[in-house]
Amino acid sequence: MSPRGRRPAGEDARADIVRAAREEFAAKGYDATSLRAVARAAGVDPALVHHYFDGKPDLFTATLDLPVNPRRRIDEVLQLPHDQLGAAVVRVFLSVWDSPEGRDRMAALLRSVASHDAAARLLREFVVREVVGRLAAHVSPQRVDARAALVGSQLIGLAMLRYVLEVPGVAEASVEDLVRDVGPTVQRYLEL
Amino acid sequence: MSPRGRRPAGEDARADIVRAAREEFAAKGYDATSLRAVARAAGVDPALVHHYFDGKPDLFTATLDLPVNPRRRIDEVLQLPHDQLGAAVVRVFLSVWDSPEGRDRMAALLRSVASHDAAARLLREFVVREVVGRLAAHVSPQRVDARAALVGSQLIGLAMLRYVLEVPGVAEASVEDLVRDVGPTVQRYLEL
Repeated sequence: MSPRGRRPAGEDARADIVRAAREEFAAKGYDATSLRAVARAAGVDPALVHHYFDGKPDLFTATLDLPVNPRRRIDEVLQLPHDQLGAAVVRVFLSVWDSPEGRDRMAALLRSVASHDAAARLLREFVVREVVGRLAAHVSPQRVDARAALVGSQLIGLAMLRYVLEVPGVAEASVEDLVRDVGPTVQRYLEL
Repeated sequence: MSPRGRRPAGEDARADIVRAAREEFAAKGYDATSLRAVARAAGVDPALVHHYFDGKPDLFTATLDLPVNPRRRIDEVLQLPHDQLGAAVVRVFLSVWDSPEGRDRMAALLRSVASHDAAARLLREFVVREVVGRLAAHVSPQRVDARAALVGSQLIGLAMLRYVLEVPGVAEASVEDLVRDVGPTVQRYLEL
């Protein structure tokens, strides 16, 4: 199977693919990275990449080492009536990151996004389009980029103040308090 | 006058004070830094610090090397009717940072805030309380911390997407488009 002639089985191969993907995405960005190139860099058959990962978004998500798969959570949110989307997005976003390990991981992610152009480009290409962009497009085909970016601006800002700056007033607020205060903002941006 | 026995006049003394203040604020945080300690570190009489700077907020603002004084801009905004504050805050915030040099400076500031605890603490203590906090307190005495932090979250997030991540949809939008889209969010947070 493998161009290298030998291949550690199971989780080792998966870990090799994730490691190779992380390097490819960082070097080339999200858009310019192909699953074929990742397979080549990992020394595995492309079929094995497809065996472990459901396409490029899924592989990219694996490289982020997130506590959950953001696309799958968005798929669940998209089942809700349109007028409940804003509150649901805030609730899902915060519940994903609100554990002590999640807070540390989000803070680290935001630090790397702010300080490295490569991380910023990945976030822009992936999160804004594949996650928030799908949500905005689901509600309306008008101004999808702008509406998605506005939703992203509120969520990223909320995460900065809650997890990185730990500003009183949002750092210790309950998730439901923030759903009540910020949900209508996200709802309005989705409906702009 | 000076404990050191000699003192360069005018702008040199002012620059020494700003340099010493930058170090003191970074080492001790905004709250724990006194003008007296800054004077001592700069080797000048405390009266000279008061001659150049109108109190600690003004001195701190000088250390940030900002294109404008954010407190003075807030003073102007506070003259407006309450129902115009949200739009005015977004307009002032973006017009301060939207020049090419302003964009670079804001991106650098956000990078240092995200990566250094000291910078994060300074932003939390100064911007949230002295700038956005005054605005929130001006509108209502209820939940000032939470309302100020929510305003801050939207402005910081907008700056992250516009100046650091350069996300399509907000990076190239006009200031007035963003005033129209984001102004009502800030207005709502001020009135919560």
